[in-house]
Amino acid sequence: MATNERVPNIFPVDPNLEPTQQKKPLHNRWHPEIPPVAQVKVNSVFRVEMIDWTGGQIKNNDSAEDMKVVNLTRCHHLSGPFAVVDEQGQPAQPGDLLVVELCDLGALPGHEWGYTGIFDRENGGGFLTEHFPKASKAIWDFEGVYASSRHIPGVRFAGIIHPGIVGTAPSKELLEIWNERERKLVEEGTEKMTLASVLHCRPMALLPEPKYALLGSIDSKNREFNRIASEAARTIPGRENGGNCDIKNLSRGSRVYLPVFVPGANFSIGDLHFSQGDGEVSFCGAIEMSGFAILRCQIIRNGMDRYLSPMGPTKLHVNPIFEVGPLEPRYSEYLVFEGVSVDEQGRQHYLDASVAYKRAVLNCIYYFTKFGYSPEQIYLLLSCCPCEGRISGIVDVPNACATLAVPTAIFEMDVRPKVSELQPSHVRVMQVSLPQCSYDGRLATFTPRFR
Amino acid sequence: MATNERVPNIFPVDPNLEPTQQKKPLHNRWHPEIPPVAQVKVNSVFRVEMIDWTGGQIKNNDSAEDMKVVNLTRCHHLSGPFAVVDEQGQPAQPGDLLVVELCDLGALPGHEWGYTGIFDRENGGGFLTEHFPKASKAIWDFEGVYASSRHIPGVRFAGIIHPGIVGTAPSKELLEIWNERERKLVEEGTEKMTLASVLHCRPMALLPEPKYALLGSIDSKNREFNRIASEAARTIPGRENGGNCDIKNLSRGSRVYLPVFVPGANFSIGDLHFSQGDGEVSFCGAIEMSGFAILRCQIIRNGMDRYLSPMGPTKLHVNPIFEVGPLEPRYSEYLVFEGVSVDEQGRQHYLDASVAYKRAVLNCIYYFTKFGYSPEQIYLLLSCCPCEGRISGIVDVPNACATLAVPTAIFEMDVRPKVSELQPSHVRVMQVSLPQCSYDGRLATFTPRFR
Amino acid sequence: MATNERVPNIFPVDPNLEPTQQKKPLHNRWHPEIPPVAQVKVNSVFRVEMIDWTGGQIKNNDSAEDMKVVNLTRCHHLSGPFAVVDEQGQPAQPGDLLVVELCDLGALPGHEWGYTGIFDRENGGGFLTEHFPKASKAIWDFEGVYASSRHIPGVRFAGIIHPGIVGTAPSKELLEIWNERERKLVEEGTEKMTLASVLHCRPMALLPEPKYALLGSIDSKNREFNRIASEAARTIPGRENGGNCDIKNLSRGSRVYLPVFVPGANFSIGDLHFSQGDGEVSFCGAIEMSGFAILRCQIIRNGMDRYLSPMGPTKLHVNPIFEVGPLEPRYSEYLVFEGVSVDEQGRQHYLDASVAYKRAVLNCIYYFTKFGYSPEQIYLLLSCCPCEGRISGIVDVPNACATLAVPTAIFEMDVRPKVSELQPSHVRVMQVSLPQCSYDGRLATFTPRFR
Amino acid sequence: MATNERVPNIFPVDPNLEPTQQKKPLHNRWHPEIPPVAQVKVNSVFRVEMIDWTGGQIKNNDSAEDMKVVNLTRCHHLSGPFAVVDEQGQPAQPGDLLVVELCDLGALPGHEWGYTGIFDRENGGGFLTEHFPKASKAIWDFEGVYASSRHIPGVRFAGIIHPGIVGTAPSKELLEIWNERERKLVEEGTEKMTLASVLHCRPMALLPEPKYALLGSIDSKNREFNRIASEAARTIPGRENGGNCDIKNLSRGSRVYLPVFVPGANFSIGDLHFSQGDGEVSFCGAIEMSGFAILRCQIIRNGMDRYLSPMGPTKLHVNPIFEVGPLEPRYSEYLVFEGVSVDEQGRQHYLDASVAYKRAVLNCIYYFTKFGYSPEQIYLLLSCCPCEGRISGIVDVPNACATLAVPTAIFEMDVRPKVSELQPSHVRVMQVSLPQCSYDGRLATFTPRFR
Repeated sequence: MATNERVPNIFPVDPNLEPTQQKKPLHNRWHPEIPPVAQVKVNSVFRVEMIDWTGGQIKNNDSAEDMKVVNLTRCHHLSGPFAVVDEQGQPAQPGDLLVVELCDLGALPGHEWGYTGIFDRENGGGFLTEHFPKASKAIWDFEGVYASSRHIPGVRFAGIIHPGIVGTAPSKELLEIWNERERKLVEEGTEKMTLASVLHCRPMALLPEPKYALLGSIDSKNREFNRIASEAARTIPGRENGGNCDIKNLSRGSRVYLPVFVPGANFSIGDLHFSQGDGEVSFCGAIEMSGFAILRCQIIRNGMDRYLSPMGPTKLHVNPIFEVGPLEPRYSEYLVFEGVSVDEQGRQHYLDASVAYKRAVLNCIYYFTKFGYSPEQIYLLLSCCPCEGRISGIVDVPNACATLAVPTAIFEMDVRPKVSELQPSHVRVMQVSLPQCSYDGRLATFTPRFR
Repeated sequence: MATNERVPNIFPVDPNLEPTQQKKPLHNRWHPEIPPVAQVKVNSVFRVEMIDWTGGQIKNNDSAEDMKVVNLTRCHHLSGPFAVVDEQGQPAQPGDLLVVELCDLGALPGHEWGYTGIFDRENGGGFLTEHFPKASKAIWDFEGVYASSRHIPGVRFAGIIHPGIVGTAPSKELLEIWNERERKLVEEGTEKMTLASVLHCRPMALLPEPKYALLGSIDSKNREFNRIASEAARTIPGRENGGNCDIKNLSRGSRVYLPVFVPGANFSIGDLHFSQGDGEVSFCGAIEMSGFAILRCQIIRNGMDRYLSPMGPTKLHVNPIFEVGPLEPRYSEYLVFEGVSVDEQGRQHYLDASVAYKRAVLNCIYYFTKFGYSPEQIYLLLSCCPCEGRISGIVDVPNACATLAVPTAIFEMDVRPKVSELQPSHVRVMQVSLPQCSYDGRLATFTPRFR
Repeated sequence: MATNERVPNIFPVDPNLEPTQQKKPLHNRWHPEIPPVAQVKVNSVFRVEMIDWTGGQIKNNDSAEDMKVVNLTRCHHLSGPFAVVDEQGQPAQPGDLLVVELCDLGALPGHEWGYTGIFDRENGGGFLTEHFPKASKAIWDFEGVYASSRHIPGVRFAGIIHPGIVGTAPSKELLEIWNERERKLVEEGTEKMTLASVLHCRPMALLPEPKYALLGSIDSKNREFNRIASEAARTIPGRENGGNCDIKNLSRGSRVYLPVFVPGANFSIGDLHFSQGDGEVSFCGAIEMSGFAILRCQIIRNGMDRYLSPMGPTKLHVNPIFEVGPLEPRYSEYLVFEGVSVDEQGRQHYLDASVAYKRAVLNCIYYFTKFGYSPEQIYLLLSCCPCEGRISGIVDVPNACATLAVPTAIFEMDVRPKVSELQPSHVRVMQVSLPQCSYDGRLATFTPRFR
Repeated sequence: MATNERVPNIFPVDPNLEPTQQKKPLHNRWHPEIPPVAQVKVNSVFRVEMIDWTGGQIKNNDSAEDMKVVNLTRCHHLSGPFAVVDEQGQPAQPGDLLVVELCDLGALPGHEWGYTGIFDRENGGGFLTEHFPKASKAIWDFEGVYASSRHIPGVRFAGIIHPGIVGTAPSKELLEIWNERERKLVEEGTEKMTLASVLHCRPMALLPEPKYALLGSIDSKNREFNRIASEAARTIPGRENGGNCDIKNLSRGSRVYLPVFVPGANFSIGDLHFSQGDGEVSFCGAIEMSGFAILRCQIIRNGMDRYLSPMGPTKLHVNPIFEVGPLEPRYSEYLVFEGVSVDEQGRQHYLDASVAYKRAVLNCIYYFTKFGYSPEQIYLLLSCCPCEGRISGIVDVPNACATLAVPTAIFEMDVRPKVSELQPSHVRVMQVSLPQCSYDGRLATFTPRFR
């Protein structure tokens, strides 16, 4: 770490290079044996750079072909792990809490753009994959703190830049817990799962997969590589260590309190988002970007005991805590769409917030089609604009009530319902075609009855 | 309607009287044949008063006995229905949207208090009923816009007063859709329902129940009473007509756009809350109160076609839209608790936002016990304070990620995690006993392994 | 004080009655010998009602005649004084700080309206009296928390209700300081005063005036009446005791820390405003109303020493402190108008924030005339809408820079500058005539050169 | 302008170099004949870098010596002018409005620090120079979006980065207006100026001064240099062209609408601030920094006629308009200090907002000394933290009422008044010495009587 720099860059990247060609090794799995790439002292301010989660597979162009064939087994490409030590050089210990303060986040000069995508149904799809089975994408240009897209005209909003992923390394014990419970889910299959019959044809879970694994400084020729890669957890879900929480407000000025499971904490960061809507509904839903973070760490000794309470069979069954500050954009007017836990076939579900939220998202999507947008444009927009998804009621049997609040100020036109019969005059101009691929798989039998 | 009043009171109540003794008849079921009690013209401003949802069953005292034996079949006690006509006297028509603006909401002089309760597990329980099977309650005193409780010391917050229920009358066709889908859910039972095995021993749905039905001006001696009462939908869940949406931000200055299913729209309002947390987790979770609303209506002719898109087998499968304004209290600092869809037994669920939210709520409850509160105090508090429940990630298989954000300014003490070992000095003072009943039913086999 | 009331009403008023006919005596002067009308205990919550500042002189009609001839010597009509004692019954003492918490504020049922006025130049005028010498007024109807005016169409905003006046009784010593310094100002006249030559023909100060004095329970037949009335300070300016500070954000949920000068503190409250713009530029500029406040007091013993520092020749030269909470409406988009300390004749003034603010207000007024409003309508609007007046730069010799920020959401139409040449289509509809009287006095020689 | 760059850097600077050694020439005067250094097209996004206003005279160390001897005649060092053309290449024309959108602002890598200073009374002083005649300074370290200072412990806040100066080039006619009115002010002297007798011994105005003038690409050997330099206006005050407005909210996401006086508009930008309090009271009061801006321009043809109204003898007597967006940090709790227009000698002034604000600032400074800070520390803090200075009442003769609102969340400790007698325990730790020089000049006769 260069000492004459004010804010040393401890993990530089070059988005023009392949993930495997970066100066520092990346990793795309969670495993306790992935060695730290750098050590940081508490209270020091440092810079970490990140490539986008696909590692450059998606290009700034007007075709969705790259989105259709994207290799998700390679994702995410994380920066780190970073070991944290206190002022006396003593590393964070299991049982401590690691405080990571996100002092700033931003784009890299020359790379002021990002993308939002819909995955093909055969490639994992997203929250509404049976409605939108085709791959699609939108490119966003960053104008300082704002983003706008040539594929979704008439909207512009300020980013709440955040890392989709920040997490500590799991211990061996925790890793085994993860692998076992997720394997069991896959084995049991869709039979026992209400939601699996509702959220059509998505993978149940992504189990360890050595193919395309990146393990940081553990070279693929290392004889331990295969063992570790076949044990290492995938990075898609958030878990006890934080990880892919996709919390849209974890932005500039926030703090995250992460449980420590291995000496040094060994935290990693990546999957930078320029902006995200709650739920990240299209899955590749935030505005995905490369960029940098300015960070500062602290250690709360014995913090897991002091502040967390395990919710499960072991003391490891905990979750991180976050702290949000006064910095994020605050809108004052919102349109709020509601959903209850009745699915599109009219079937009643029991207090199911996921079904209720799905309905709220669908209600919202088709509302904005009244203003000249295609449903896919809004599906993408809700994935990445600063909209808020709430669990409003979770006790009024049998209906959960979820809401989706969209700030009206992100639209150029007035999108509120009007008593007068006059239609907005600029409805036409929204009809801009979105890059979309065909869907070649078997079509869902479900056909929603929109007029 | 007295013409010399600026804001006529078209539905006065007296909280000291029984529900059946009020000047205007109340109703506690949804049915197209319940006649309107008054007619209002668009753009006029009028006042409606409401008794609390239990109709006075819960008293301002320090015993939870009334909460344990509360008769929920009598609830909710709604004010209305109100028929709405345009400037020319033409009523709202099926297919229109009814705009109800909530111009103001407040307490009735002399009744500046409310309550939050936990129901006994045998009486319906709440979101965390297997953790907290015993009936309990907290009384809140209103000091103008603020509430504080002698049962939960050290917190005080401003109310975001809102009606838990605002809805239009269903048509006969819509009523039949409700009754059929909810009956089917009950018949199928818990077998097919993931959540029912997680949310222990709660009723699946509450089907029509003539006992304790109030049908407004339809007298119980009327020979049609029994037919209507056995058809009329219960008011517990929110549905296509709005109803019990429990949206905590539907407060002063908000608008709701309700679909119209019968001529006149016949909207009702009730279940007033002084404040509520997202999810209203303890079920009787908001600060329940009697009070008033100042309202103003508008009609958007043909608004269902212009702005809504049915999501289901019929054109009636729609949901209301809301519009939130710049008036609600805005906090700037939040502590955010996270949950993923792994339950307390460590079992993995698939993208289940309800399970994830449950875990976030539990994480939050036990966090605040570190500051001297009992878990029941926080369970009640999270039901009614202005906390925000978010669906943060809904696509990262297999884990849904839900978050619960609590504004730190509602606590007298600093409740943030501290790096220093010093414990807050006033932890002791929080130990105030909460009114609680014993639970006499069969205990859940589940025992969470908290240290 | 009735003990079975939750929030006792200790000062009821009836806006239909004359000020002298109210149940409790009003007062319109500051003097230590005006006896308290009631005693309140710290931490108790109580209600105080207030008539409007003119005591009913202004009527809800479409003529400005009452505004032209209003008798300002009778104003303000305050409720109180209230003596404050601690839990042990010991009164607040000189040197203490009195904390008054404004728990709630609102209109009285049946009196849901208010007014904003421009005074005739001969009757005191306002901030821009040489531009707008004629009396004028606008009536505002309250729709719950919102106000709209038939005289200023196209705007609607939520009130930030606050008392223009809250203050403690001055001691004899403090009263003498006030009277002496204000008398000296009047004697010196306009010669030495830059501003007096800028703010044309307004009174320098209003010295004690026995005529129309109301001294609470001191009857006008009391032989001390004349002495006290000729000593008692007028209520127009804010001073060391608080008084007419006209701080628009001192609303629901705020606290004010008032210095105590006499035993019991003897605080008074009145001049209720539904909403006010910073500066209250038209003088009768807020939306003036009758109404109520829910209050709670505390005493900080020895608080003047602990928290205040005198800024002047005596220990009495202090000012109150306020604390603002998270409750006020928060807008997110503003148009900001700037002024520097160059007057309308083009003359340079030295770091004069009053001149700079005047220019900012003029710039704003004439901006909105581009959208179809008359200058007088905007002058009235800026007096009462939630606009923010800022001292932005006070050191960049010779120009002070003041700004006036107007939230765009209070207008129905989009009032932002547009790159496109298209003019807003609804400009015409704003042309609604405002009640205005002729001005019969000598006209100012100044003629601004607006195109 | 490199075409393959996404956001071209059209004005690079190196803060390690002298102002005269930069790649592009700087300027520190306003004059129509200073040639543009670059041309930008509307709707394109570009980057401009700026050195700090003193051009590197102030160093990151613990001595105030550099602040005492700083050469202010060299200031400010502006980047530009930039000529703006439309899509067809036609330049902005006199009478147009130039829209400059501030898309982003930030520090330069390696230069993540800034300074706040108090000038020696002999070197111009500041708003409170007779109270604080000695030069002093505080260094701020930027931790991403946050700043903290080793010289003012216990506070930390997020920056609202903004350019102190953004303005268009004046026409010859406008320049002559400026020079004449400011010369007249200096000639008349303090006699006629109320404020000059209150704001002790500060310069009345800074007239054109060829010494140290920088005129962009006009070399000092150019034979026109001396003429232009002796006509060119100094950059200290804000004027009709914008300029040094020091508006603290003109930050990320804001727009400024500048009147155009010369073909191409020729706008300049500089004097970057990391954060500023309203008024910038200590004069070198913001956190001064070098840095960058990402900008985008638009032209509103004929915009001066369409949106502005001259307030003065000519059509050039106008001011810019600003538009503020939802991006700035929003605090929810504030302590508000009040001042009325009575000076520290107890003398009554007439509706003088500058005097009132001065008193509010003094009240605030001495309040925070109760918590262990020195008055100079708070004087510096109020100059640069996000505090809001308001003109609350400007009509209540004879007292103007100004308020200063300080967000409580910027302090580590709880700084609100407390009813309990307990003093905050950490008062001691604040006593950290600030770099201060002695003051060698004649002392003011005024001695405030603080206890």
